Amino acid sequence: MNKPVDQSEFETPEVTTGPLPSSRKVFTHPKADPSLSVPRRMIDLHPTANEPPVPVYDTSGPYSDPSVTIDVEKGLARQRTEWVLERGHVEEYEGRDVKPEDNGGASGKYLAREFPVRHKPLRGTGTGPLTQFEYAKAGIITKEMIYVAERENLGRQEQLETAQAQIDQGESFGAEIPPFITPEFVRDEIARGRAVIPSNINHAELEPQIIGRNFLVKINANIGNSAVASSVEEEVEKMVWATRWGADNVMDLSTGRNIHNTREWIIRNAPVPIGTVPIYQALEKVNGVAEDLTWEVYRDTLIEQCEQGVDYFTIHAGVRLAYIHLTAERVTGIVSRGGSIMAKWCLAHHEESFLYTKFAEICDIMRAYDVTFSLGDGLRPGSIADANDAAQFAELETLGELTKIAHSRGCQVMVEGPGHVPMHKIKVNMDKQLKECGEAPFYTLGPLTTDIAPGYDHITSGIGAAMIGWFGTAMLCYVTPKEHLGLPDRDDVKVGVITYKLAAHAADLAKGHPAAQIRDDALSRARFEFRWEDQFNLSLDPETARQYHDQTLPKEAHKVAHFCSMCGPKFCSMKITAEVRDYADGLSDNEKADLQRQADEARKGMEEKSREFKGKGSQIYLASQD
Amino acid sequence: MNKPVDQSEFETPEVTTGPLPSSRKVFTHPKADPSLSVPRRMIDLHPTANEPPVPVYDTSGPYSDPSVTIDVEKGLARQRTEWVLERGHVEEYEGRDVKPEDNGGASGKYLAREFPVRHKPLRGTGTGPLTQFEYAKAGIITKEMIYVAERENLGRQEQLETAQAQIDQGESFGAEIPPFITPEFVRDEIARGRAVIPSNINHAELEPQIIGRNFLVKINANIGNSAVASSVEEEVEKMVWATRWGADNVMDLSTGRNIHNTREWIIRNAPVPIGTVPIYQALEKVNGVAEDLTWEVYRDTLIEQCEQGVDYFTIHAGVRLAYIHLTAERVTGIVSRGGSIMAKWCLAHHEESFLYTKFAEICDIMRAYDVTFSLGDGLRPGSIADANDAAQFAELETLGELTKIAHSRGCQVMVEGPGHVPMHKIKVNMDKQLKECGEAPFYTLGPLTTDIAPGYDHITSGIGAAMIGWFGTAMLCYVTPKEHLGLPDRDDVKVGVITYKLAAHAADLAKGHPAAQIRDDALSRARFEFRWEDQFNLSLDPETARQYHDQTLPKEAHKVAHFCSMCGPKFCSMKITAEVRDYADGLSDNEKADLQRQADEARKGMEEKSREFKGKGSQIYLASQD
Repeated sequence: MNKPVDQSEFETPEVTTGPLPSSRKVFTHPKADPSLSVPRRMIDLHPTANEPPVPVYDTSGPYSDPSVTIDVEKGLARQRTEWVLERGHVEEYEGRDVKPEDNGGASGKYLAREFPVRHKPLRGTGTGPLTQFEYAKAGIITKEMIYVAERENLGRQEQLETAQAQIDQGESFGAEIPPFITPEFVRDEIARGRAVIPSNINHAELEPQIIGRNFLVKINANIGNSAVASSVEEEVEKMVWATRWGADNVMDLSTGRNIHNTREWIIRNAPVPIGTVPIYQALEKVNGVAEDLTWEVYRDTLIEQCEQGVDYFTIHAGVRLAYIHLTAERVTGIVSRGGSIMAKWCLAHHEESFLYTKFAEICDIMRAYDVTFSLGDGLRPGSIADANDAAQFAELETLGELTKIAHSRGCQVMVEGPGHVPMHKIKVNMDKQLKECGEAPFYTLGPLTTDIAPGYDHITSGIGAAMIGWFGTAMLCYVTPKEHLGLPDRDDVKVGVITYKLAAHAADLAKGHPAAQIRDDALSRARFEFRWEDQFNLSLDPETARQYHDQTLPKEAHKVAHFCSMCGPKFCSMKITAEVRDYADGLSDNEKADLQRQADEARKGMEEKSREFKGKGSQIYLASQD
Repeated sequence: MNKPVDQSEFETPEVTTGPLPSSRKVFTHPKADPSLSVPRRMIDLHPTANEPPVPVYDTSGPYSDPSVTIDVEKGLARQRTEWVLERGHVEEYEGRDVKPEDNGGASGKYLAREFPVRHKPLRGTGTGPLTQFEYAKAGIITKEMIYVAERENLGRQEQLETAQAQIDQGESFGAEIPPFITPEFVRDEIARGRAVIPSNINHAELEPQIIGRNFLVKINANIGNSAVASSVEEEVEKMVWATRWGADNVMDLSTGRNIHNTREWIIRNAPVPIGTVPIYQALEKVNGVAEDLTWEVYRDTLIEQCEQGVDYFTIHAGVRLAYIHLTAERVTGIVSRGGSIMAKWCLAHHEESFLYTKFAEICDIMRAYDVTFSLGDGLRPGSIADANDAAQFAELETLGELTKIAHSRGCQVMVEGPGHVPMHKIKVNMDKQLKECGEAPFYTLGPLTTDIAPGYDHITSGIGAAMIGWFGTAMLCYVTPKEHLGLPDRDDVKVGVITYKLAAHAADLAKGHPAAQIRDDALSRARFEFRWEDQFNLSLDPETARQYHDQTLPKEAHKVAHFCSMCGPKFCSMKITAEVRDYADGLSDNEKADLQRQADEARKGMEEKSREFKGKGSQIYLASQD
């Protein structure tokens, strides 16, 4: 079934580059370290708008920067190596040799080409702090912390005076969003385990990003060549494509052959954190036979991926032998791939999961590279019927225990969550996670709020994602329209990313994040003033907005016309509002009070008439029972 | 700009007919009146499933019934005329002549063909109750009430024993959902003003439907030829198309020419309630000049539409002169078309709106045909910046007053709501509406939870719609992907309907409606057991589900294969679950307890190790502050 990758046909991945419409990449330099360059995208509006450009969070990396020459064969610039070396407690070493099984035994024309450049890996020496968590605990502010603070403050500097009021009008369910993000605030949140900066010391190409309840809600896109379809080139472009539209980070869920080489191409070209599920590759190394998995194979896979620069690992260490039978009565059993691999292993050996028994050793490996834990929810519900059941919550409690252990060993930790959950059962998931896991960042898939709409599960889950993001989830794992049906293509990835971007933003607004509403308001003003181009350019997906407009009103004239297709040129509700403004400007306070008095009198007259009539009306009803 | 409709080219509308995949239309006969035939759709599952067919609410009318010959030139069967005549207090009369201005002055080849059959209208004589509200108040159960009770009970008969438990596990925010819907319960809800059955006595083709907080959440699709695009044939097919995918009712928002004739074709062929905004047509009659509107023109338009059989009217009587200046500081002013027409009129004349001053007369006209009020929210926010402001809530309070007046004069009433509202400001809208309007059904547009995603506003609003539906909104007005950008085409209408259907269903699940989860569970079982065909057939959009599947796994063999494209044939998480079941079946209670004991001991061991380590770890952090 595996699609062969013909080496001779292997081309340099073609990736999408260039700025988004009317957008410029701008770099700001944090006060705390002006040597750092933190990107943002500025959307320029039409000169007639007489409005400043709108700043937006920029996940697209150098690909959208016309001043950078992209060479996928070389990878992105490796600025973070300097930061890591400067801090010390690391050593460069030869690293593990790539073995045939790392690529699923692919050879000859079936083996995907190696990434052309090889960088020796770094690892911690154990002589001092290594992870962002350890530095934070030690009271040290890293460059990454300064960088993410600057990045999160998008638009806040200009709205400092009203920031607290913006927070106060929101509802954050106990989060502690500050008016302004300082590097010290970032450090403190990380030290408390409430936020993470996934940033493997070997992912030098990374533009760091923070994930935590008191920061902007992040989203993740999954890519990955599966056993059945897709190629290396496609995967690199999918990563670039997903981040272009706003994916804050990307998980490479590849299975089948060429996993190692595909991942190397992705990471060397990735400005965003890359996550993986190492058990997937480990399983390939034992030919897909779960019971043949061993700690040694898994350990070797962890080190392989640590050296490559993977920023976070999903580790399903909460799938314990004692919980497996709790899923037997479920409608959809164990639907997590990692969860079911481990369940199979535990049953075959009738032994506790090695991910659990070896958890301390896993921590020590991940600490040496600062790979962040994403504690997997292997027992998540696969249908709303199974939501919030004993198996799911038993695992969540274990994830809470493991969070504490990982913290005690210096690691950064996120915790994964469901899944399929009807709306009224969502909040208890968030509340329980906060309690059990000491406010470690929650990272959820959706949740899907109904099971009856395959083909639309980006939407069934977007509803749940917006809600749980509002309640406190720090990162939302996207779902594409193909969920449950097939592998997403380029268009599906985009639709999934945009859907989750809007869900995350809806959550940011509801939580009261200062300055979150800048883009909404700018777009609303553009809409109101019929600045069509500004409306397209300010939207999450300018291409689609423009295309939809042009389907009905294709002519250039219509993009400057002061009407829209709903009402046509003759009558326009927005035009009338301009007249209302003129009218209101001309009203004195006395005149306004007069209007209200007249209105109240008229209302009383109406009520009086209605009371009189009601008596008569009732007589009619009674008389007519024939 | 108006697109000419060439009479010579006018064809009989071609509409979509035939059953949905693996579906049969079945009629049940209520105990209270076995002469009634109430439709439902039964989805048959694959014989290997050994499961009963799944009943689903069917809005598609005779179009999906292969035993009915559809003739759009004749219209649907007019069964309700008999029900209305039987109850009495009505008279047939000649009705108003169609005037050239009813079709916007279109003539010759620009005039759309008249519907071939003319039915004389009925109206109330005032000698006894006429509206469903009046009958309910009089203690009389109508055929419509029996019909909708049967229709709502979908699947409840089979789950009677657990119905109360299903309600109890839900969260309905004070709704009073009964385990089983009796005709008497329907009557009582209507008499209390908490539910409506929009059912003009002249819409004899109607399959009645109930809208209220204690019933399943309904959705509405908007269609309508605008001044700029689309034709009569398209509009009839759009109505058929929207109801095929689940639109519970349809609003005809036509503007421009041929409004009268288009509407006649739609209503004569509509199995669902049809709503309109009469001020749109009235405006066309005065050539689009809002200040030229008069009570006489409006009154004449109401009667015209009452005679045709429109089931509910949006009437923006809450846009009062005294409130208009409250919108002056808004980001997006007045965005409701009806609201801005009335604002313009009020300002031009500096007079109170005639919709308000003549409200009692409007009630009396609508009562004579049992047209339901949908009190329009002409001052709804057009951006999240304007949500929940003084203008919006002043109008809502007036809508509360008008609800009481309309009830006192025997009319059924719904109340319309916003609009654009961030998540944290949604619930107060619902709570205030319930309080001000005495629990009259709320009918909201979305709300959209952010403004930054034009092209995806079916999703930004689907999020808000699911939430407000859960909180108590009785009907959700759909939003298509083209919202704010252009007029929806056939595909957009479908996407809008499916999105709102899933949002409404998510709300039903969260409220705890008995039997609501039947379809989710059946689909989840099909998914778990790799019954691909059943999974497609049970989904809201079987065509899209199948198409997405086939894009990745096109071969027929893959639709019976026991794996999906995500994991491939080698490893399958769902297969492993079957093994878990076998394992769990073999475990004794003692063995389960043993497992738990061992697990607890292992956990304690881990904790101990982590505590020891933590001491050491902290020393490292401190030593390393270099």
